[in-house]
Amino acid sequence: MTVRADLNISLDGYATTTDQTPEHPFGHDWGRLVDAYVSTRTFRERVLHDDSGDGTTGVDDRYAQAYFADVGAEIMGAGMFGLHNFPDDPDWRGWWGDEPPFRVPVFVLTHAQRPPIEMAGGTTFEFLSASPHDVLARALDAAGGKDVRIGGGPTVVRDFLKAGLIGRLHVAITPILLGRGIRLWDDLRELESGYAVSSEVAESGIIHVTFTGSD
Amino acid sequence: MTVRADLNISLDGYATTTDQTPEHPFGHDWGRLVDAYVSTRTFRERVLHDDSGDGTTGVDDRYAQAYFADVGAEIMGAGMFGLHNFPDDPDWRGWWGDEPPFRVPVFVLTHAQRPPIEMAGGTTFEFLSASPHDVLARALDAAGGKDVRIGGGPTVVRDFLKAGLIGRLHVAITPILLGRGIRLWDDLRELESGYAVSSEVAESGIIHVTFTGSD
Repeated sequence: MTVRADLNISLDGYATTTDQTPEHPFGHDWGRLVDAYVSTRTFRERVLHDDSGDGTTGVDDRYAQAYFADVGAEIMGAGMFGLHNFPDDPDWRGWWGDEPPFRVPVFVLTHAQRPPIEMAGGTTFEFLSASPHDVLARALDAAGGKDVRIGGGPTVVRDFLKAGLIGRLHVAITPILLGRGIRLWDDLRELESGYAVSSEVAESGIIHVTFTGSD
Repeated sequence: MTVRADLNISLDGYATTTDQTPEHPFGHDWGRLVDAYVSTRTFRERVLHDDSGDGTTGVDDRYAQAYFADVGAEIMGAGMFGLHNFPDDPDWRGWWGDEPPFRVPVFVLTHAQRPPIEMAGGTTFEFLSASPHDVLARALDAAGGKDVRIGGGPTVVRDFLKAGLIGRLHVAITPILLGRGIRLWDDLRELESGYAVSSEVAESGIIHVTFTGSD
């Protein structure tokens, strides 16, 4: 059982992009940041329900498979769920369609009161306001011995890192400079001291860096 | 003939460290940032004049060799030469002892008036206040067809990058988080658009990223 996080970041450390417009609800920067990940066969199958077998099958896909494997519960911030974009829509059910890729209980951190949502495929969304420790205790209980993933965004992941709660952090660094957005690395000096760090470069040029805790 | 730059940076992008004290004039952070580089056989030979043959000989050493190869002139900022640390010492001759590793004309950008210095081994230091374009014209002339290296610090390298003057940028990323210092990547959005970017991971864990211009 591991508490873990995976994020896509730019070479200058941005994990959340901020150039969304009504015409491009995810933004141009986001598309460039996650291009290699969404090109993998695993993403296409799991998120897009594309069973054609298309998509890349190299190093990036190996990380995409690991991303979904052995997760028993997920924790995410309000921003990742979309509540900052659609705060007044009581029917907002996330970005991921009727059958989200999580297939496990998802705990969404928010101060807003919202009823839980049950989606097709095993995903449930529960909304709560809690400290990292407290929501993690809930998620560990729900995960039944499997891993808990801190899904994002970067501010939430940083809170869990600073609380010493993350056993494995994987960042996929896209070698582009965004120059704007929300950075992952702020205020994390000497994070590496509690981890072994290893890196590898994918065929796509993505640099995968993994911090693995000693526990 | 290429105008190029090589910098050591942390995973969070810091290229200059700021924890120097009288007891530790380079600082603890700097030592951690450049540890793999100063462990190479090439650094030991070229900078420390250690001809014992000790030092690493893997991927990091290949980059260290390339760092010194084919350079005909160097440009550096006042901070890299040490003028911010020793502004009032007219006898300050840089950090590198009587026989610096450059062995070529070095142009130091400063508003201070200082006479040129001739060192053993072919290194000269000339001090001038000039725009990136103007000092580069001087350095290209002095280089006689060989490469010009923009030595640093990060603020100087960034000025040359923003002016579109650098044909090859190599950054050696040490997988540590410093959380303080001077960052390289600020205000360089979409730098990659003029370059091909490639990366490789050394035995030491250092991630070498190279931006190669199309010219």
